[in-house]
Amino acid sequence: MRQLKAKWLEMTTPQATKTAVLVIGGAEDKVHGREILRTFVARSGANDAHITIIPSASREPGIIGGRYIRIFEEMGASKVELLDIRDREQCEDPNFKESLANCTGVFLTGGDQLRLCGVLSDTSVMEIIRQRVRSGELTLAGTSAGAAVMGHHMIAGGGSGESPNRSLVDMATGLGLIPEVIVDQHFHNRNRMVRLVSAIASHPDRIGIGIDEDTCAMFEKDGWMQVFGKGSVTVVDPTEVTHTNEPNVGATEPLTIHNMRMHILSHGDRYHLYQRTALPANYRISN
Amino acid sequence: MRQLKAKWLEMTTPQATKTAVLVIGGAEDKVHGREILRTFVARSGANDAHITIIPSASREPGIIGGRYIRIFEEMGASKVELLDIRDREQCEDPNFKESLANCTGVFLTGGDQLRLCGVLSDTSVMEIIRQRVRSGELTLAGTSAGAAVMGHHMIAGGGSGESPNRSLVDMATGLGLIPEVIVDQHFHNRNRMVRLVSAIASHPDRIGIGIDEDTCAMFEKDGWMQVFGKGSVTVVDPTEVTHTNEPNVGATEPLTIHNMRMHILSHGDRYHLYQRTALPANYRISN
Repeated sequence: MRQLKAKWLEMTTPQATKTAVLVIGGAEDKVHGREILRTFVARSGANDAHITIIPSASREPGIIGGRYIRIFEEMGASKVELLDIRDREQCEDPNFKESLANCTGVFLTGGDQLRLCGVLSDTSVMEIIRQRVRSGELTLAGTSAGAAVMGHHMIAGGGSGESPNRSLVDMATGLGLIPEVIVDQHFHNRNRMVRLVSAIASHPDRIGIGIDEDTCAMFEKDGWMQVFGKGSVTVVDPTEVTHTNEPNVGATEPLTIHNMRMHILSHGDRYHLYQRTALPANYRISN
Repeated sequence: MRQLKAKWLEMTTPQATKTAVLVIGGAEDKVHGREILRTFVARSGANDAHITIIPSASREPGIIGGRYIRIFEEMGASKVELLDIRDREQCEDPNFKESLANCTGVFLTGGDQLRLCGVLSDTSVMEIIRQRVRSGELTLAGTSAGAAVMGHHMIAGGGSGESPNRSLVDMATGLGLIPEVIVDQHFHNRNRMVRLVSAIASHPDRIGIGIDEDTCAMFEKDGWMQVFGKGSVTVVDPTEVTHTNEPNVGATEPLTIHNMRMHILSHGDRYHLYQRTALPANYRISN
């Protein structure tokens, strides 16, 4: 409890410029309150923010990138750049590397997560992002495909409407920015519980994080994740699983998984990635 | 463990004529191996079975009833009757009551669960079924709508494709044959996880049982439930829930539920309704 209290106090302290990783379930509000994108700009330094947009997941990088440029500029960021990286060679470009070495926030747009990883994985540009996120110099946000790439294991595609089974979900290697998690996005909106559960059955050393549209799971450096936005974040935690038939069944046979833990979190709720505990939004320590 | 062993030995003892309640997720195989329907006939007494079909959920009771008559006769049941009950008055018919007082198996077809409950709830016919199921004289099976009615609380309808919320699921009162559970059927086939979770958030004293098509959750009198068939049975157990915002949020606001336990069970797996423990299909006690 003492530890929880210390963490809580840390969370409630204003930390507008402390970096974070914002994992967004796609279709975030770009018109009205724009709470998620506004929080990203705030955590990137508010009026001092230097934001670099990477639209490489998209087939229309100019259009989608241009929209985010206007939004972040309207929100008062001091500098907004679009790095229109379309192939791996560009990831060695000194100008791009310099932009990423100096910016305070990186935004990964939606599109196709396989395309995004194909361009960025194991490149100089990616190494700069990874190191600066790890050292707490850089706030990172990814939406939709840009969210899917956050884990080491990545859901590349999949189905729904059938019993959980291994063939239901296509796995690939992500960018590993939060290696402990497997992210799914547009989560309840596209009925993706079954593919996340199927993914976790094959990777029981990870935690499944399913993020609804216009909803953000914001990861702090101390291990706390906080939910905000319109929908919910679903956590599928296999730590206590006592049995699965996953290693022994064919790809289309139904999976068995006993003793998963599941949390449905909504606005203000917190979850600790290492303690594996959830705290409600209104959690207060009174003494 | 001693208790588990005793239970296990009981389960492995042949018990072809011991009664059970078979809760079927709909679309059970009626053509090939017909494992689920065959098990129902076996547990109703095999060649001594006297089966009564209640097609009241259906808008085409004669057609659907006729199909099950042929199947159960082909399987060797000694007597098969169709009780074409269309209104509550018929539930007092002495001939119907006599059939239900003497049969060894009752089969509830699919259709509309509200229609089925509207006809049967709190009638003489229903009271005979309830008492004979409770005393272990009668094997009962219900498929689809006939499965949905098993709990005290019943899912009457609902949606998918959005964050869990109270308005996502329409609840009504079921027939209460297994009052501890809330059943959902065509479960993963129709992406119903989110509506079952929403239902359980409002009824945390129950256990959610989501049954896939051509899959059966067979409840024994001692509290064990065994899964068989093609798909999976999902158990959502809120016993350990530490927090939910359910009492405090509007009907369309996203629900928060911390620390649910979830089991995905498939063919041969068992779950104990009171101990709330799952056992794998190949579970053996070696000493």
